[in-house]
Amino acid sequence: MLQCFASDYTQGAHPSILRALEKTNLESTSGYGTDVYCAAARDKIRAACGCPAADVWFISGGTQANLAVLGALLKTYEGVIAADTGHVSGHEAGAIELTGHKVLTLPHKNGKLTAAAAEAYIKAFYADENREHMVCPGAVYISQPTEYGTLYSLAELEALAAVCRAYRLPLYADGARLAYALGSEQNDVSLQDLARLCDVFYIGGTKCGALLGEAVVIPQPSLLPRFFTQMKQRGAVLAKGRVLGLQFDALFTDGLYYRLGENAVRMAAALADGLKAKGYAEHCPRETNQVFLLLTDAQYEALRGRVAMSFWEKPDAAHTAVRLAASWATTEEDVRNALEAF
Amino acid sequence: MLQCFASDYTQGAHPSILRALEKTNLESTSGYGTDVYCAAARDKIRAACGCPAADVWFISGGTQANLAVLGALLKTYEGVIAADTGHVSGHEAGAIELTGHKVLTLPHKNGKLTAAAAEAYIKAFYADENREHMVCPGAVYISQPTEYGTLYSLAELEALAAVCRAYRLPLYADGARLAYALGSEQNDVSLQDLARLCDVFYIGGTKCGALLGEAVVIPQPSLLPRFFTQMKQRGAVLAKGRVLGLQFDALFTDGLYYRLGENAVRMAAALADGLKAKGYAEHCPRETNQVFLLLTDAQYEALRGRVAMSFWEKPDAAHTAVRLAASWATTEEDVRNALEAF
Amino acid sequence: MLQCFASDYTQGAHPSILRALEKTNLESTSGYGTDVYCAAARDKIRAACGCPAADVWFISGGTQANLAVLGALLKTYEGVIAADTGHVSGHEAGAIELTGHKVLTLPHKNGKLTAAAAEAYIKAFYADENREHMVCPGAVYISQPTEYGTLYSLAELEALAAVCRAYRLPLYADGARLAYALGSEQNDVSLQDLARLCDVFYIGGTKCGALLGEAVVIPQPSLLPRFFTQMKQRGAVLAKGRVLGLQFDALFTDGLYYRLGENAVRMAAALADGLKAKGYAEHCPRETNQVFLLLTDAQYEALRGRVAMSFWEKPDAAHTAVRLAASWATTEEDVRNALEAF
Amino acid sequence: MLQCFASDYTQGAHPSILRALEKTNLESTSGYGTDVYCAAARDKIRAACGCPAADVWFISGGTQANLAVLGALLKTYEGVIAADTGHVSGHEAGAIELTGHKVLTLPHKNGKLTAAAAEAYIKAFYADENREHMVCPGAVYISQPTEYGTLYSLAELEALAAVCRAYRLPLYADGARLAYALGSEQNDVSLQDLARLCDVFYIGGTKCGALLGEAVVIPQPSLLPRFFTQMKQRGAVLAKGRVLGLQFDALFTDGLYYRLGENAVRMAAALADGLKAKGYAEHCPRETNQVFLLLTDAQYEALRGRVAMSFWEKPDAAHTAVRLAASWATTEEDVRNALEAF
Repeated sequence: MLQCFASDYTQGAHPSILRALEKTNLESTSGYGTDVYCAAARDKIRAACGCPAADVWFISGGTQANLAVLGALLKTYEGVIAADTGHVSGHEAGAIELTGHKVLTLPHKNGKLTAAAAEAYIKAFYADENREHMVCPGAVYISQPTEYGTLYSLAELEALAAVCRAYRLPLYADGARLAYALGSEQNDVSLQDLARLCDVFYIGGTKCGALLGEAVVIPQPSLLPRFFTQMKQRGAVLAKGRVLGLQFDALFTDGLYYRLGENAVRMAAALADGLKAKGYAEHCPRETNQVFLLLTDAQYEALRGRVAMSFWEKPDAAHTAVRLAASWATTEEDVRNALEAF
Repeated sequence: MLQCFASDYTQGAHPSILRALEKTNLESTSGYGTDVYCAAARDKIRAACGCPAADVWFISGGTQANLAVLGALLKTYEGVIAADTGHVSGHEAGAIELTGHKVLTLPHKNGKLTAAAAEAYIKAFYADENREHMVCPGAVYISQPTEYGTLYSLAELEALAAVCRAYRLPLYADGARLAYALGSEQNDVSLQDLARLCDVFYIGGTKCGALLGEAVVIPQPSLLPRFFTQMKQRGAVLAKGRVLGLQFDALFTDGLYYRLGENAVRMAAALADGLKAKGYAEHCPRETNQVFLLLTDAQYEALRGRVAMSFWEKPDAAHTAVRLAASWATTEEDVRNALEAF
Repeated sequence: MLQCFASDYTQGAHPSILRALEKTNLESTSGYGTDVYCAAARDKIRAACGCPAADVWFISGGTQANLAVLGALLKTYEGVIAADTGHVSGHEAGAIELTGHKVLTLPHKNGKLTAAAAEAYIKAFYADENREHMVCPGAVYISQPTEYGTLYSLAELEALAAVCRAYRLPLYADGARLAYALGSEQNDVSLQDLARLCDVFYIGGTKCGALLGEAVVIPQPSLLPRFFTQMKQRGAVLAKGRVLGLQFDALFTDGLYYRLGENAVRMAAALADGLKAKGYAEHCPRETNQVFLLLTDAQYEALRGRVAMSFWEKPDAAHTAVRLAASWATTEEDVRNALEAF
Repeated sequence: MLQCFASDYTQGAHPSILRALEKTNLESTSGYGTDVYCAAARDKIRAACGCPAADVWFISGGTQANLAVLGALLKTYEGVIAADTGHVSGHEAGAIELTGHKVLTLPHKNGKLTAAAAEAYIKAFYADENREHMVCPGAVYISQPTEYGTLYSLAELEALAAVCRAYRLPLYADGARLAYALGSEQNDVSLQDLARLCDVFYIGGTKCGALLGEAVVIPQPSLLPRFFTQMKQRGAVLAKGRVLGLQFDALFTDGLYYRLGENAVRMAAALADGLKAKGYAEHCPRETNQVFLLLTDAQYEALRGRVAMSFWEKPDAAHTAVRLAASWATTEEDVRNALEAF
């Protein structure tokens, strides 16, 4: 069975990452992210973000990054606004609630939280005379790209950031698949834009060519004092921190991160085009590395033994929506094999 | 400056681990620890523990393992008994308290919690007529070896386990440096003994030759239902779970884990002997891979620029205790270099 | 301005409660709910519920009862199913999330959670192959009467309880206004029914004639071991526990609790009838002690200076829904005064 | 058996409190502490504290006040420094840990935390190079009087406050028995001093003549923004908030609070003197309303059937220390009866 489109984390890491691990293997360095490779990676990320003073922290996974950041951003009595389809809303097993905070969900639009919906919610909260008995919105969560593989345009992001600033709410962007946003032909939001418009965001490694690791960027480091201790408390600090630093150092050398993103998007486009040509219907338009198909249940049953896909949802009794994800490692041959299997 | 004795996590991983990562790099596998390499590692660990039914989970670091396990073992109104020198007591930034649980500390004896002290505490709790206003002991935490590099003997462990069973308290052993216990010439506690006497324990990878990773073993898997979801909630699940499985698969192939432990212990013994021959005083007796020295402050100031050591404590105004740790990677040349620097 | 319909907690306590406090004032009793008055109240409540073995605990307020009970019922990885209009969902400032648990909201029907909606949700959860990454439903929360003053019929409650039992989920009923359910002419659910069908419920005092206090009933006491310690941890135990016991002793003497409920319902009916006769529109049908009116915004502006009402919601741009609550203390004269003010 | 010395919460409330409840019983007021009686009580407390701008909040019990205040004062990564004998350390069932915070215990001196011990601890923390892996001290907890009935002198309190200010740690005083400090002939710390030197403190009602209730005073209200919502989240807000306001209004009318304290202290002194005259040994010197006796075990066995006392501790195998507490309600006759029973 063709496995590689099941998700963008089915394979290992870009070879340059393995080379870096091997090359430095027997060097002795200090622990907990204080080594030279973490320092180098931080500098490259700061440069890429146009943010020389930013704090950059490496965390091993996305849920952990989300709970560490939101746990640090929110006061005990605050919740986080998110689209109802946001990763923190439904797919992290209640990690945010376990830190004590409600996820205040608003209806999504193509997977996105709109500035208008956020503003209406916040305004209604402040107009409600019972608001002291309610959860106070304390931050706004988005992801770029979204769970549906869609992108916030620069205009949309500017609008959302303007709402956040008007109400002094920090804006946090989950970039688990950020390479695939940056690599999209439809994208107009740069890393510098994210650093300018978000209060915290993370640059995803696990799904974008690393073995593991996410880089949390805090453009104004005074925002989250003692963040290291908070990471430690959540179990989010690796003793051999350089394992993460080395990977981001490699990803941010010679534009590798962008190239990996572009490859995945190109392969996803080829796959989507090929499937369209074969008569398959899109479940929603492809913008990044994920292709959502609308299959009849019969098609689904026939195909699922041949191609590993993610079940997405059942929009009606007779159809099944599925997701295929290209990745940094997907090859033209993988696409050809998939098209043959369909 | 000589760096490699600063801790047992200054270097990368055993070469066979890097080879395994490289060899499997472009294979597509399923995520979250459901892959064939995790399965193989689980089977090898079960065999090594003599526990064919055990649950085995891979977690990226020790603090995370401790908080995930204790968070799952303890009910909301329970605390965990530990030696006052236990890692969970003072060096995890309050991770256990952040999960809502008090660490009930008892005075240590050579870094160890004694069966007698534990039993006296538990008895006193149940005899106290105000116990319903107090934190109920819900588990016992130890580490093998301890923070002082000392070992529980089999007799000591049997005695502690007997107390735990008498009061129906699960016994949890933190094995961050377990290879160095297993590799000690003074050790009489096998993996099978741990599996027989503990309710949960973890086999440390990060400090014992892996890039990262700890293997949590639950001999009776019914003890912790839905542990995967609880790990997920704590951010303790890696999407590319195989990164951990591959490492433990390598460590438990052909007895590598034991050999790595033995090497560290042998190098530590050589270092300790050499230092004794040079007239240095031990701060406490070496049992595993860690050498604790008692230096005059003048010696400490002179040495600390030449050899990286961990400051341990100041036993009095004129002396400083330091720790030197040998590791899986320490060579005889490293020992010679250290002895020359002293 | 007429104040007494603003809520059902605007006035003090039934005179028999004040008399009991006065009569026993200088007696010395033991603390923390271990006194004879708490014991007497427990026995009367057990008798009223037909549940001689039930555990009964007194807690000072409703939010505290909800968080103490749900905090004790739910495992760390579980959430509670509730109607989106449930008190725990929106009006407790995130108290449940602060205990670490997600409120899993389902669309309400007249303020109620239907058995069909609950079952569909639970079934979908267990059918989802990603369920280990999601919040596991661990209990079901309802209130009798609901936030809209509506009542679960016995048939509805039986159906919901059947779903809960089929999936081994405890059913918890918040009875903040339970007297007004029991006193409703439309009610067919007795205290004995609640004790038979719910795993935990509480009998509200604060809003039903006491100064403060709620009585948590656990028909099978083995369900929540060490509940006292859990209450203590949440700050939910009063040193002078008899203050609560004395009140419930009075409320459950000679059927007072029922009579107070009946009075409120009769007065609410008279108010609703009078308002209907004056041409006012109901926002939803009255079933218990609360009258929901649909006013034009102009009416609302004119009335709100004369009669204290709770703003409820704005169903459209031109109308405002308000709530008037009769209580145990409402008199016919209060109703006449209100009707004159309208 | 003589019950009234078992604790200072064995009896009801001062009659003026019951009169106030009765007099206002049928008035309709707004809820949640927004009523006129709470407002009046706040003003009287502000005046007594010499703090016209202070925030004053009413909470039903001491553990709840402690967890609400410390939960609001501490950041997630902070703990609270307390004497090892402090109420939050051992007698609140882990309430502080359940809010996520470690209690950092230091050895007491006569039940007190000394400025020197606190400063040494804080200095050592900031000097420790591993401090980012440790719990950061975030507040200091004391009680006045202490668990041993001892008093901080003004000089001691000034010294402790100076340490707190030097390190920007808020100082919080638990005044569960504050009336008995204020009423002691040995006391030189006024309410105004507490308001000047502490960042938050509470004035105890439950143990000092009220049915229930503690008044939390925040001299600089900007210290704890949205404290109401945080109270609500913890279940610490009563719907009929006036029940608490009315009591503090009564206690702070015509100096009642002070008189109640003085009565208890006078009765405790008479009891202590009488027992001394009868040859009984003090376990520690009486400073406020609590008398600690050192009994032989034989004496204890003989007496415990005649006089209700609190078991305190067993200082050695042959002796038992017990506590007798006088209260606002203790009469000369009670003292005579006790002395006869001894």
